[in-house]
Order: sequence, then structure tokens, then C-alpha cells
Amino acid sequence: MKESGGRKQGAASPCAACKLLRRRCAHDCVFAPYFPADEPHKFANVHKVFGASNVNKMLQELPVHQRGDAVSSMVYEANARVRDPVYGCVGAISSLQQQIDTLQTQLALAQAEVVHLKQFEWKKGRWWQ
Amino acid sequence: MKESGGRKQGAASPCAACKLLRRRCAHDCVFAPYFPADEPHKFANVHKVFGASNVNKMLQELPVHQRGDAVSSMVYEANARVRDPVYGCVGAISSLQQQIDTLQTQLALAQAEVVHLKQFEWKKGRWWQ
Repeated sequence: MKESGGRKQGAASPCAACKLLRRRCAHDCVFAPYFPADEPHKFANVHKVFGASNVNKMLQELPVHQRGDAVSSMVYEANARVRDPVYGCVGAISSLQQQIDTLQTQLALAQAEVVHLKQFEWKKGRWWQ
Repeated sequence: MKESGGRKQGAASPCAACKLLRRRCAHDCVFAPYFPADEPHKFANVHKVFGASNVNKMLQELPVHQRGDAVSSMVYEANARVRDPVYGCVGAISSLQQQIDTLQTQLALAQAEVVHLKQFEWKKGRWWQ
């Protein structure tokens, strides 16, 4: 996440957010550090899903050092919602939870097999280690 | 997810969305089936995070049979963002991915131990099963 570089030093080039919103990009623009002019899609999806006004408000409510992470997570969520308008990134959460269920079942089986193999050896009096 | 019940039959009681937005709740209100008057927080967080206008637009773009799931996932995302304004539900995704990494490591170790135990038996000529 680039914390700066939203605008060229000394140039009047607006950040991607101000360009899309067709407004003047002030020197203290809250979007400029996170939405550089050369990544227009990054803001477009965030604007479509959350709305520029909500994003502005959410960023203003956070300390500056947390805004980069907040933008990254909002961009991730917005892209997921544009790709999948029904489930958004909640679809990814369901899929990961299913993977966890499958892995937990496989792990329980493998661990049970280890216990079984060790018990078999122990019963035969041929315990090693 | 309740597909109906946003408003009492024959009553003028507005849904939670129209009540918050202080507008008349039309008989074909897009929010009413999913945001009943007795669950005001459900819409409040969705409105705060996505904005009523964006939610309206997203629902209108979906066929009716998918809107219930879309609302559920938006409510989940909005609640996660209100609880954690920096990471929202992307925090849950990171945490689940870490759980998957841990489980995959544990599974690989358990499976390697099974292979080791079986090979030990096989080398001793005491293979079973």
C-alpha cells in the first residue's frame, strides 16, 4: 500500500478519486495518498460499493497510520463485491471455512491412524522411540 | 433470511430502512422484505457502511431470488466493518487463512508420521492390513 504518491510533486494532477468525482484535489485530500491517478479502477470499485462519502468518513475517523490498511481492506471487499454481487467476500469466508472443516476431518483421521499404529506396536511389545 | 414480513399486512408501518431514511415505505419497497421494522440495527450498519443508495442499486441489479443472500452478506460485511473499522471482514479472511496454514502443517506432519510408522513396520516384514 503506497502511503504517498497519489499526486506528482508540484503538479496539479488530481488523485484517482478526485478525478472520478470531478472535484479539485486539495493538498490535504484524504484520498490522494491511497488512490493514485495511475490506478483509476482501485477507486472506481470502492466508490461503487461503499460510496465516496462513506469512504471519506471512514478514513477521517481513523488515525493516519491505520488508513492504508483500511483502504487495502476496502479495496479487497469492493473488488470481491463487484466480482460476486451476491456474496462478495463473504463467499471467500464460506469457502475458507469449508476448507478448514475438510482439513480438520483429514487431520483427525491421520491422528487417529497414528494412535492406532502406535497402539498396535505397543500391544506387540515392540514400542520404539 | 426472511423474504417477507418487512411490514405488517394492511398496516402503514414502514420497514427499518424507510424509518431510518424518514421516507414513505411504498408497497414495492426494495428494502422492506429484508429489513423488518423490528430489526433497526440490521439496516443501520448496512446504511453506515454501504449507503442506502448503493444498497438499493445493488439489490435492483439482482434477480429477486438472490436478494436475500445479497442482503445477508452485506449485513455480515457491514457488521464486521463496524466492529473493526480497519480490517472489516478481511480480518476474518486473514485469520481463516492462518488457520488453514496451521492445519495444513499439522496434517503434513501427521501424514508423514503415518508413512514413517508404516515403513518401519514394512521394513521389519511385519506389514499388516
